[in-house]
Amino acid sequence: MKDTTVSHSDLRKLSAEDVRAAIRTGSYTGHTAGLAAGKLQCNLAIIPEQFALDFLRFCLRNPKPCPLVGVGDTGNPLLPTLGRDIDIRSDVSKYRVFENGVMQAEVTDIADIWQDDLVTVALGCSFTFENALLRNGIPVRHIDSGKNVPMFRSNIDLVPAGPFAGQMVVTMRPIPEAQVEQAKSISSRFPQAHGAPIAIGDPANIGIADLQQPDWGDAVTINPGEVPVYWACGVTPQNVLLDAKLPICITHSPGHMLISDVAEDAETTILKTS
Amino acid sequence: MKDTTVSHSDLRKLSAEDVRAAIRTGSYTGHTAGLAAGKLQCNLAIIPEQFALDFLRFCLRNPKPCPLVGVGDTGNPLLPTLGRDIDIRSDVSKYRVFENGVMQAEVTDIADIWQDDLVTVALGCSFTFENALLRNGIPVRHIDSGKNVPMFRSNIDLVPAGPFAGQMVVTMRPIPEAQVEQAKSISSRFPQAHGAPIAIGDPANIGIADLQQPDWGDAVTINPGEVPVYWACGVTPQNVLLDAKLPICITHSPGHMLISDVAEDAETTILKTS
Repeated sequence: MKDTTVSHSDLRKLSAEDVRAAIRTGSYTGHTAGLAAGKLQCNLAIIPEQFALDFLRFCLRNPKPCPLVGVGDTGNPLLPTLGRDIDIRSDVSKYRVFENGVMQAEVTDIADIWQDDLVTVALGCSFTFENALLRNGIPVRHIDSGKNVPMFRSNIDLVPAGPFAGQMVVTMRPIPEAQVEQAKSISSRFPQAHGAPIAIGDPANIGIADLQQPDWGDAVTINPGEVPVYWACGVTPQNVLLDAKLPICITHSPGHMLISDVAEDAETTILKTS
Repeated sequence: MKDTTVSHSDLRKLSAEDVRAAIRTGSYTGHTAGLAAGKLQCNLAIIPEQFALDFLRFCLRNPKPCPLVGVGDTGNPLLPTLGRDIDIRSDVSKYRVFENGVMQAEVTDIADIWQDDLVTVALGCSFTFENALLRNGIPVRHIDSGKNVPMFRSNIDLVPAGPFAGQMVVTMRPIPEAQVEQAKSISSRFPQAHGAPIAIGDPANIGIADLQQPDWGDAVTINPGEVPVYWACGVTPQNVLLDAKLPICITHSPGHMLISDVAEDAETTILKTS
């Protein structure tokens, strides 16, 4: 199956469809940051139908950490509103499979465990506004330093729905003080990708003890004259799903997002098919 | 019960909560245009839980005509993310009750027909962007001439979900040619209220034969130098629900919207409770 492999740099010039094709065949199993420039990438949650209504309610009530960008039909692995010919069983480069909230496997294909009762939910991701910050000359520290974004459990309560509840996970990016307003304004244009910051400044205000001790990802340097800016994070729904201990739940692996055909700056996340 | 009644003008200075209180007691049963200025008003669909997942999928796939702004828990008449103390059984001034797609009654209270399996879905409405157009000096013909907005069946196919499918209903507002771009830009800031226009200009392009023969509402004059501008309409989900012939479905009566406590220009439609 995987007799030919391609590198991240081989893929950088390819279209979203061609990147997905390389992922589908197993030629590429790496992360998707920087691929298919200008196309919306998505966090992924695949859950049994019996939990789907509550999970959609949960996402709709917590749109900053959980921006819904696509939902599949029950048992149907296609996502036509997000992309031509997307098959969610094969078109993500790495998946995590959880049973009762415990990770069982990390795999590059889920065709053999797909079930007729599964519903795919796609959520926006921070790549979208990070790309916009970079295009506008606002530095993104973890990218510049080759690290993963630092993520923290906050004390911001989520609005519950059914078995889904908890606190918001946030990302932190140090922004030069003079550019904070611009960063706020740019990210607010992408409600499908966490939107404007959740908080700015003192981490204690949102229950974070130490910015050098992230709960996930890597610590980054905050230089003099920079302000920590916090955005809602797509790890929030993943955490909430794990806490709910569903019998089965499949997510993407961190950084290995679903690449859609929807433009990052489109008015809606529904692909125009005509 | 209704020993005291109040007029629309009595209510114009009241807060959203106070208007809802007058509606709850039955003192006011009229339309809600122009009430609780600055607060989001909502289209309403109350349906059995067994159809709710498909209906949410339908709305998520058709966000322009069906912008989801709030969803209740199954059997729970409260909508805390939209307003303090909203009880959906009493807080809308007029409801329509449908069985198998046929209207059975128009009532001012649904407490006696509320069921434990009902789910309330609130959708944004055009009042929000109309208010913004008026504030920016863009005329809104049907308001100026004391008419209901003209609505038309278009030939724009909706993305189906389960039993829900059909064509988009659109509203038409004649806009002076020089102000069309501004009208587009203003309304695009309100994705929770149908967003930017769906089409501009020739009605034939979206399958409308005669702008003087609306399918619902009233015909309005298009003056020389004005361009017909079409927006997605909240009658779309109502039509689609009726076509699906659910055993029971309750909606607001046209113009009798649910008044929320959420600011029209809020980043999300989730009320900040702290």
